[in-house]
Amino acid sequence: MTDFGLRDPYVGIMKGVLLGIAPGTCIVDLSHDVPPQDIRQGAFALAAAVRWFPEGTIHVAVVDPGVGTERKALLIETSRSVLLLPDNGLATLALEQEPAVTVWCLDREEFFLSDVSRTFHGRDVFASVAGHLASGRRADEMGTSMDRLRIVEFESPPPSLQGDRLLGEVLYIDRFGNLVTSILQRHTGGRRIDRAEVGHAVAPFATSYQAVSSGTLLSIWGGFGYLEVSLNMGSAAEYLRARVGSPIRVNFSEPS
Amino acid sequence: MTDFGLRDPYVGIMKGVLLGIAPGTCIVDLSHDVPPQDIRQGAFALAAAVRWFPEGTIHVAVVDPGVGTERKALLIETSRSVLLLPDNGLATLALEQEPAVTVWCLDREEFFLSDVSRTFHGRDVFASVAGHLASGRRADEMGTSMDRLRIVEFESPPPSLQGDRLLGEVLYIDRFGNLVTSILQRHTGGRRIDRAEVGHAVAPFATSYQAVSSGTLLSIWGGFGYLEVSLNMGSAAEYLRARVGSPIRVNFSEPS
Amino acid sequence: MTDFGLRDPYVGIMKGVLLGIAPGTCIVDLSHDVPPQDIRQGAFALAAAVRWFPEGTIHVAVVDPGVGTERKALLIETSRSVLLLPDNGLATLALEQEPAVTVWCLDREEFFLSDVSRTFHGRDVFASVAGHLASGRRADEMGTSMDRLRIVEFESPPPSLQGDRLLGEVLYIDRFGNLVTSILQRHTGGRRIDRAEVGHAVAPFATSYQAVSSGTLLSIWGGFGYLEVSLNMGSAAEYLRARVGSPIRVNFSEPS
Repeated sequence: MTDFGLRDPYVGIMKGVLLGIAPGTCIVDLSHDVPPQDIRQGAFALAAAVRWFPEGTIHVAVVDPGVGTERKALLIETSRSVLLLPDNGLATLALEQEPAVTVWCLDREEFFLSDVSRTFHGRDVFASVAGHLASGRRADEMGTSMDRLRIVEFESPPPSLQGDRLLGEVLYIDRFGNLVTSILQRHTGGRRIDRAEVGHAVAPFATSYQAVSSGTLLSIWGGFGYLEVSLNMGSAAEYLRARVGSPIRVNFSEPS
Repeated sequence: MTDFGLRDPYVGIMKGVLLGIAPGTCIVDLSHDVPPQDIRQGAFALAAAVRWFPEGTIHVAVVDPGVGTERKALLIETSRSVLLLPDNGLATLALEQEPAVTVWCLDREEFFLSDVSRTFHGRDVFASVAGHLASGRRADEMGTSMDRLRIVEFESPPPSLQGDRLLGEVLYIDRFGNLVTSILQRHTGGRRIDRAEVGHAVAPFATSYQAVSSGTLLSIWGGFGYLEVSLNMGSAAEYLRARVGSPIRVNFSEPS
Repeated sequence: MTDFGLRDPYVGIMKGVLLGIAPGTCIVDLSHDVPPQDIRQGAFALAAAVRWFPEGTIHVAVVDPGVGTERKALLIETSRSVLLLPDNGLATLALEQEPAVTVWCLDREEFFLSDVSRTFHGRDVFASVAGHLASGRRADEMGTSMDRLRIVEFESPPPSLQGDRLLGEVLYIDRFGNLVTSILQRHTGGRRIDRAEVGHAVAPFATSYQAVSSGTLLSIWGGFGYLEVSLNMGSAAEYLRARVGSPIRVNFSEPS
């Protein structure tokens, strides 16, 4: 996953470097269209994905506005996979899914490309280290052990109760204009959702997009376990002019 | 093929699921930028592609506005490949290229992911079933046999003769603005095409884009066997303000 | 690498053809969003990439406005890889990185698909030949030997000195709006760069994006060895309204 886009040859070059070190590696693109330098959207995409990949997968994630500064490069072994990424918060949400077990600060230059550039650590550091890992080198050879509590993370406030309503926010907006909210099933305390509200608009709870008529709002449990607000056959984000961070209110069918 | 786009992690997640079940599978992206929920454009892209892939290829195609409703999920064995897709017309044009031999309704939940979501059958049903198929499970284990005449298909009218002219329509518009029409070589009755007409504009028949001067319309047999209307070094779609469904008239060099 | 985009099934079809001939081939996408028919941008993307791929890599590059005319199709063996591309200048900059050793004009139709179309040599010629090469056929079987001096190339003028300043131009603009200039380290004669100028705007030399404040211009040695002009946390191209070909002046810290 990167924010490099697919128009420039950057992503292909990372793969060329990796395959030069570890021929035959199976590489999967998660997304390269994370909005440029948007660590929060990148963190969500990574967190949404990790549990669906095989155990032992090496996730290389580069959204890296601090490239060339003193920010660290990390290798995080979680309970089921490996994350290679800059130490800037990008791991925050993935580590809520699978906790960090050991953390290494990547500082062994023999595993980087020679002549590390100031601007393209995706190639010179992360793809190179990923190649060495994929070809069988051990994590403890690659860097210096580091306290997992010292990983940079951003704040991600859980939804809060206000009277009988649950208050959350928009975490992610996908290409269909679906609003992925911060509300998970466990936040509902087992109560049935009646509707979500965004500003003055009401999105009744439904169990399929087509349970409401075309052009109508609904709220639905989405594919990642979060409550989503959608517009059947349209874009809820456009219709509601919602953005990442927009507040969402959820009402329940019965009082608590 | 999906309409999920490449900005969100959905396509990568489908591949993660598939590779978890069938490690080492060779996966090729056909397109993930089918216009959202546009079954006809998706059907064209799939049909254009199937014959160029090796025999035995498993084509997973998800353009699925009815996800979460009672629409069926299908496994279609054709004369040379396998299609996994929702039963909503998406197979219509591919089955004109390679007829359905056996059809299965995917209803064996042991081949789905546990906890099938309401919104992401691409992951929970289609990628999972594709993984089991790729790892050697047989089609007849995956579902219940179904009459191939009961597959949902949309109408796709063939071109018609009006006097000495052939009347067709635009089936697909590609990123270059080339208009792929519904007219195949077999519709011409062996006659030589003189020109295509779109509204009042005339596109003389040519055998290469550069046979006409820059910025000039032409018509040409395209790479899928259909007559295409193009603009040398430009976009015919923009120039003509043409859309999918726009009518095309073809005139021949000699009377029939 | 192509200019076909990823919306249409063209790139997937090329891979289907290649894998039908050479099953299991590892295919990497370099870019498919070269601006349509823009040979110079394509040539830059290819040249930026070749050295990062393993020795023996087969690079298939199709930006081909002359498809269907008499332009040749080439197989170029360089000092470390193979290029398959139309003879239209697309190889120009890659051959500055790794010189041509032997050149073959692809004219053995038995290695093409039967019924070569007028419009899609990416599939019918280049993907097919790439498949045969990848499956072990030799270059000398595929075509007729050709003088390497007769390859079509475009002019790419090196930077020039004007008094104490170096005059170059913008070669490539990436998705972040970074301006990749024609100025390489060897053009500086070992002198330290003080700043780059684009029109009246000044971009002080820096060693990381974050060495300047947010929204500020800088110049920096980029990941391909070229001087780049960037805007920290923004797009230099938009801010400066720069284009490919825009002139750049470089001033040094000390007189020569």
